[in-house]
Amino acid sequence: MLKIGVLGCGRIGRMHARNVAAHPATKLAGVYDINATAAAEVAGNLGVPAFASGDEAITSPSVDAVLIATSTETHADYIEKAVAAGKPILCEKPIDLSLERVDLCAERIRDTKIPIMLGFVRRFDAGHAATRAAIRDGAIGELHQVIVTSRDPGMAPAAYIEGSGGVFRDMTIHDFDMARFMLGEEPVEVFATGSRLVDPALMERTGDFDTVTVVMKTASGRQAIINNSRQAVYGYDQRVEALGSAGMAVSENRRPHGARLFAAEFTERAEPYLNFFIERYEQAFNDEIGEFAAAVAEGRAPSVGFEDGRVALALAEAAMKSVREGRIVKVSEIG
Amino acid sequence: MLKIGVLGCGRIGRMHARNVAAHPATKLAGVYDINATAAAEVAGNLGVPAFASGDEAITSPSVDAVLIATSTETHADYIEKAVAAGKPILCEKPIDLSLERVDLCAERIRDTKIPIMLGFVRRFDAGHAATRAAIRDGAIGELHQVIVTSRDPGMAPAAYIEGSGGVFRDMTIHDFDMARFMLGEEPVEVFATGSRLVDPALMERTGDFDTVTVVMKTASGRQAIINNSRQAVYGYDQRVEALGSAGMAVSENRRPHGARLFAAEFTERAEPYLNFFIERYEQAFNDEIGEFAAAVAEGRAPSVGFEDGRVALALAEAAMKSVREGRIVKVSEIG
Amino acid sequence: MLKIGVLGCGRIGRMHARNVAAHPATKLAGVYDINATAAAEVAGNLGVPAFASGDEAITSPSVDAVLIATSTETHADYIEKAVAAGKPILCEKPIDLSLERVDLCAERIRDTKIPIMLGFVRRFDAGHAATRAAIRDGAIGELHQVIVTSRDPGMAPAAYIEGSGGVFRDMTIHDFDMARFMLGEEPVEVFATGSRLVDPALMERTGDFDTVTVVMKTASGRQAIINNSRQAVYGYDQRVEALGSAGMAVSENRRPHGARLFAAEFTERAEPYLNFFIERYEQAFNDEIGEFAAAVAEGRAPSVGFEDGRVALALAEAAMKSVREGRIVKVSEIG
Amino acid sequence: MLKIGVLGCGRIGRMHARNVAAHPATKLAGVYDINATAAAEVAGNLGVPAFASGDEAITSPSVDAVLIATSTETHADYIEKAVAAGKPILCEKPIDLSLERVDLCAERIRDTKIPIMLGFVRRFDAGHAATRAAIRDGAIGELHQVIVTSRDPGMAPAAYIEGSGGVFRDMTIHDFDMARFMLGEEPVEVFATGSRLVDPALMERTGDFDTVTVVMKTASGRQAIINNSRQAVYGYDQRVEALGSAGMAVSENRRPHGARLFAAEFTERAEPYLNFFIERYEQAFNDEIGEFAAAVAEGRAPSVGFEDGRVALALAEAAMKSVREGRIVKVSEIG
Repeated sequence: MLKIGVLGCGRIGRMHARNVAAHPATKLAGVYDINATAAAEVAGNLGVPAFASGDEAITSPSVDAVLIATSTETHADYIEKAVAAGKPILCEKPIDLSLERVDLCAERIRDTKIPIMLGFVRRFDAGHAATRAAIRDGAIGELHQVIVTSRDPGMAPAAYIEGSGGVFRDMTIHDFDMARFMLGEEPVEVFATGSRLVDPALMERTGDFDTVTVVMKTASGRQAIINNSRQAVYGYDQRVEALGSAGMAVSENRRPHGARLFAAEFTERAEPYLNFFIERYEQAFNDEIGEFAAAVAEGRAPSVGFEDGRVALALAEAAMKSVREGRIVKVSEIG
Repeated sequence: MLKIGVLGCGRIGRMHARNVAAHPATKLAGVYDINATAAAEVAGNLGVPAFASGDEAITSPSVDAVLIATSTETHADYIEKAVAAGKPILCEKPIDLSLERVDLCAERIRDTKIPIMLGFVRRFDAGHAATRAAIRDGAIGELHQVIVTSRDPGMAPAAYIEGSGGVFRDMTIHDFDMARFMLGEEPVEVFATGSRLVDPALMERTGDFDTVTVVMKTASGRQAIINNSRQAVYGYDQRVEALGSAGMAVSENRRPHGARLFAAEFTERAEPYLNFFIERYEQAFNDEIGEFAAAVAEGRAPSVGFEDGRVALALAEAAMKSVREGRIVKVSEIG
Repeated sequence: MLKIGVLGCGRIGRMHARNVAAHPATKLAGVYDINATAAAEVAGNLGVPAFASGDEAITSPSVDAVLIATSTETHADYIEKAVAAGKPILCEKPIDLSLERVDLCAERIRDTKIPIMLGFVRRFDAGHAATRAAIRDGAIGELHQVIVTSRDPGMAPAAYIEGSGGVFRDMTIHDFDMARFMLGEEPVEVFATGSRLVDPALMERTGDFDTVTVVMKTASGRQAIINNSRQAVYGYDQRVEALGSAGMAVSENRRPHGARLFAAEFTERAEPYLNFFIERYEQAFNDEIGEFAAAVAEGRAPSVGFEDGRVALALAEAAMKSVREGRIVKVSEIG
Repeated sequence: MLKIGVLGCGRIGRMHARNVAAHPATKLAGVYDINATAAAEVAGNLGVPAFASGDEAITSPSVDAVLIATSTETHADYIEKAVAAGKPILCEKPIDLSLERVDLCAERIRDTKIPIMLGFVRRFDAGHAATRAAIRDGAIGELHQVIVTSRDPGMAPAAYIEGSGGVFRDMTIHDFDMARFMLGEEPVEVFATGSRLVDPALMERTGDFDTVTVVMKTASGRQAIINNSRQAVYGYDQRVEALGSAGMAVSENRRPHGARLFAAEFTERAEPYLNFFIERYEQAFNDEIGEFAAAVAEGRAPSVGFEDGRVALALAEAAMKSVREGRIVKVSEIG
């Protein structure tokens, strides 16, 4: 059993703490949050100690490994400290909003053998993973096109948007990773465009976009299309489609249950989709913990690592540049 | 080109006349109806002669074959006349409401080599036919259970119900044939039960049922379940399901088009199903004409014939007896 | 937190023990099994004590309530003992294979106010529950017909079949309850028929059936059709369909994930369904624990109780009598 | 009855001739093809005269209106001649491969009141039309994003590709129109990218692409994404999706029939989709004829006209320029 200390007791940190406590391969060693009350509450509910600081959580002998779910600007620091303490790391995305900071972090931990895993949880969704497997196993022949549809159920609070680093680094970053996961080759070109349609006033004020399209191409010509919206009122919309020379693999939305209604005016009516990521990716969050524990146990690199976090961030920067300049940006233009 | 004379210009006769006129393998030789105005109108629209009588239609040298779509009580007479005239026959179901009359007809035409086809149109539906093919080809292994769901979109007019011969001979008769088509063995036992739920007053008055369930078993133990309702407000509901030792084959409902709607309260909402048989079985009615023309051209028996009409009627009688007596009725008890 | 002692550490008891341990409203007080090694293993894994006997589990002051998941013949005894000890009960179905024993048990606990819940877990499936809610809320108007499709993924071991009490009391019993849950009225007539198609030799030897159809009717004429098979190779098949005067509500099968494959020979191909009840009804088993805890906390009767267990068993007996006699059996004929 | 002369007896011209002959509102006056043998064959099959020249077909007093389905380079000439002859026109897309020629044609027919309809048949597909209606009726609120998926079942013959004018003018042109149909606003910006993945050698030789993505934006920020492939081995893939502030409307693929297969290795497996446009858009081609006849009868402009043909071609040119220059192209840059 891998004893994990969870840093961060916000919405996602609390969920991770519960998952770590319940997973058969892990044990929750304790939790930390900058808000001591929040940490104490989570610790109390789960019957574990609350650490007084992030450093204590990382260095405590009761902690074998750390799960970093604090605010983004602290991720790189904690990664460096955990590496220094020799503790395996599962870090929520993104590593940092600044590619420079990410590169500095990479430089500082360059020679480490410590397993570092990035929380690109969607790779562990059984449907997305089966789609990836179909591609890898040749079930659809040579891959030609990937389409990632990813829409939040509703606009995040203004404060969240303001601190998010913009839609490409906050939201699309998951889809950049999903596209790479499916493509099996690195994108070399990025085109992006953004609109302000869901909450134009907020988007104007923050210089952000709520509706974006990204098109990427690999050296061999494989295409990936990402479409994002901050608002899909029918529920969290998460789909992946892969077209190949011998077929197509898709990962469809999940319905919350199997009921449908038929009436004089309609047929096959179903419920709205699950509201958001904690419900939609429940299975994936659990299997992410499992992969982390397995990688540590086997002394191997996790299936998704630090470099994946860096590349997704570079693609986000390329998309931002593409929007500014109205042209295709080569990924090689980004540091 | 097979020149066909169509007897009967009611709703289904008119449809047949149009189909015969448009089908590449057939030509409409003329039409007849007891109502001369109706016949004249159809004849005028399709540019063909109207015959003065059923006998004229049958014996006319311009007619190679006849399609009988008149009222039920005339079917057996016209079959006998067409056989006497040496004209191949496509007859709408049922042959007659009386099994005695059917048997008399069978006796009278006993030694004929004239192709006689019964209008069990659903056998020609591409989805149902593919399901039958899956069974025959072993795609689901040994067949164990067949479930036929068959519900009209709405209660027929009282006058229709009064003259229908009852739900089993009027409506379920199609499903008895569908069950036989799928089973590949003859049912030997029949159980049926009926309820008066859609229009209890009309059903009480006519001694009929609007909601029925039939369970049949073959000698080897294969089961068929039929469920009927005179009213499915969401549209004409026509499904078949076949469970076997190695899988399941189903024929689902068809949607009128591919549109779906998603909103804050629902997802995947589609249109009501097609309203009734002329729309739902359009492809099947056309392919039925094709099979009839092919059978005549090849001098062979059509894939569904007189005896199929007789057996379906016998099963209807068995069902009626089962309802009356509250017990399983052996088909051998019916004449 | 309701402290629950779990009696029985077989497949379903182990699952219940894990669920009770993880549920936010309950705590696992300890476990018991007639096989002390099995009990010790489960106890060790979950960090709780193993009780030395069922009596000790029931009477222990550390136990607020009991969950009975032992072999069927012990259920009634344990229910009586738990009632005597004043401990609320969640008991797996069936109460007993003998209606006489059930009635004796009912007599002995007649005046108790102790909450007793029967483990008809499917009522708690979100899809089935939404279908029931659609009926109750009038979304489909007056209910006319209910169809319950319930097929196991594969034949149980011979030893299980031999001790099962027969398909109606072992397997269909869930579907009798599901039909009652949907019907909103009591069935008054039962017709059943059985075949030996999946494993004829085993069925012959045990006098059992592996493929059965049951048709029931309420006093107002509502019909329920149940179809069961011991083997659906494509996965555990669990569907409910309710037809009403104003529409239809269905609860469809759940796919294990959202992936589909398309190729030159096919489209929309999905994975086999979840293999069996522990996976398929995972959500339902958890919500069943929640309902039990809530009922105890609120001092009210659980939503499904002892009498529901008795009625389902009486319907099973009626079905068995119907098969023997080839006729409709009135439920009033059964004690 | 509108008497229509059909010019062109290739695959699509033959289909149109059959449809015109069968449609209740039209009559086939005759056919013409540059290949007199082809014309004679079609004329013979349908029992109509073959015209000796396009001019004769257009000017014949037996012809009320013309349907132009000849090779693309003749379209503009025939349009001009039909306008001169005062005959309403239904012309297959595109008007011409050259925007200059289209503009010259527009100039020449500037003041005509003759109804001219462009054959953007997909607008008449019942599913696509219902999706458009959902947008127009406000069922999805304000429109934000349109996604058009359009993939041919297999690569066209090399000769066809060579004379096609390139994928954007030949294939995407339908999707440019579909996007405009859905958007309800004109695109002002176009980005496009192309790959050579299906048949790289042919694409290299012709300077064409077989896999393309187009992103367009309207002045208000609405986005349209088009993805095209020359090869979808699972069948002709034709889908439209529209996301709005209050919901989503989609038009899904149609299955050829309702059959599905389930086995130990899979569930819900269906047939490949219909192979190509004549089958997939059968209903739409018929309703297109109906709209043409109705517009002529009512003396109004058809719902899709010459200008729609011109705009779609301009968008194709913008896409070609975008691919060449790797940047967003404003539609105003294109003449």
